[in-house]
Amino acid sequence: MSIVPELMAANERYASQFTNGDLPMPPRHKLVVLTCMDARIDPLRALGLAEGDVHVLRNSGGRPTIDVVRSIAVSQEMLGTREIVVIHHTECGSVRITNDSIRQRLTESLGPDAGRAAGEIDFLPFTDLDQSVRDDMAILKSSPLLQPETEISGFIFDVKTGRLQQVDPT
Amino acid sequence: MSIVPELMAANERYASQFTNGDLPMPPRHKLVVLTCMDARIDPLRALGLAEGDVHVLRNSGGRPTIDVVRSIAVSQEMLGTREIVVIHHTECGSVRITNDSIRQRLTESLGPDAGRAAGEIDFLPFTDLDQSVRDDMAILKSSPLLQPETEISGFIFDVKTGRLQQVDPT
Repeated sequence: MSIVPELMAANERYASQFTNGDLPMPPRHKLVVLTCMDARIDPLRALGLAEGDVHVLRNSGGRPTIDVVRSIAVSQEMLGTREIVVIHHTECGSVRITNDSIRQRLTESLGPDAGRAAGEIDFLPFTDLDQSVRDDMAILKSSPLLQPETEISGFIFDVKTGRLQQVDPT
Repeated sequence: MSIVPELMAANERYASQFTNGDLPMPPRHKLVVLTCMDARIDPLRALGLAEGDVHVLRNSGGRPTIDVVRSIAVSQEMLGTREIVVIHHTECGSVRITNDSIRQRLTESLGPDAGRAAGEIDFLPFTDLDQSVRDDMAILKSSPLLQPETEISGFIFDVKTGRLQQVDPT
């Protein structure tokens, strides 16, 4: 059964107490937060942020894909952000897969069309959590589409404690 | 000046009251929420959700890019989600740009290397908000990488009222 009726009822309560109708479009903190889709992470609450404060980008792993670079370029050029925070996390699904294993699973459960489509996708698994954060900071830093003065920091979120640990970029 | 010290202090307060250390990795609601990076949207609060409930994917516009399909395939295959909610919103930056305009702006502010990189990216602008939601539901529905029983719903979030309006898929 779809969860949509439950979501709509909850949104009705949210809208009935809504006081953010005058927020400007540009993020108050000129910040983009890039993190994983993982259900255990609420990036706004974990960072003490609220509506209006930051752009949030999320995908599997919190990796700086072309889609992320596209989004940051728009965020910076159109809405003036100049800082990026990359947050990976403990117990990430991206360390439990390899490209081969996820492609094989998708082929087995969905068939050869899925197998072909999956074969063209890099699922961006990683093995070393700290290194994955350093890699992603470096990828962003080297992109010609980011403003050169962009400040980039990297963190690991511990899903057992809710605590962020900063990762040295070098 | 970087906002990192402020974020770290806020995270220390979050961690000191953290009670979610036992949450399982699979999302409680078997749901993926795909929405825009826009600062005015807090998808969890707007839908009455919390840590542990759903996977959240966010990019510029809330569009179903390859990166989004990659992430949903992982979410479904590894962590059992079977429903997707697509949420676009009023006053979206994606209706204020065209591929030509954003590429020209990036070239002017960052130089020819940025112009070449931007020329290879579709920034996924749109003009009709309702149609953009319908298009994105259709793109997801037709992907060979999604489980065939996936339920997909589409919504528009009104940034002035905080209210969601469902979009008919046809």
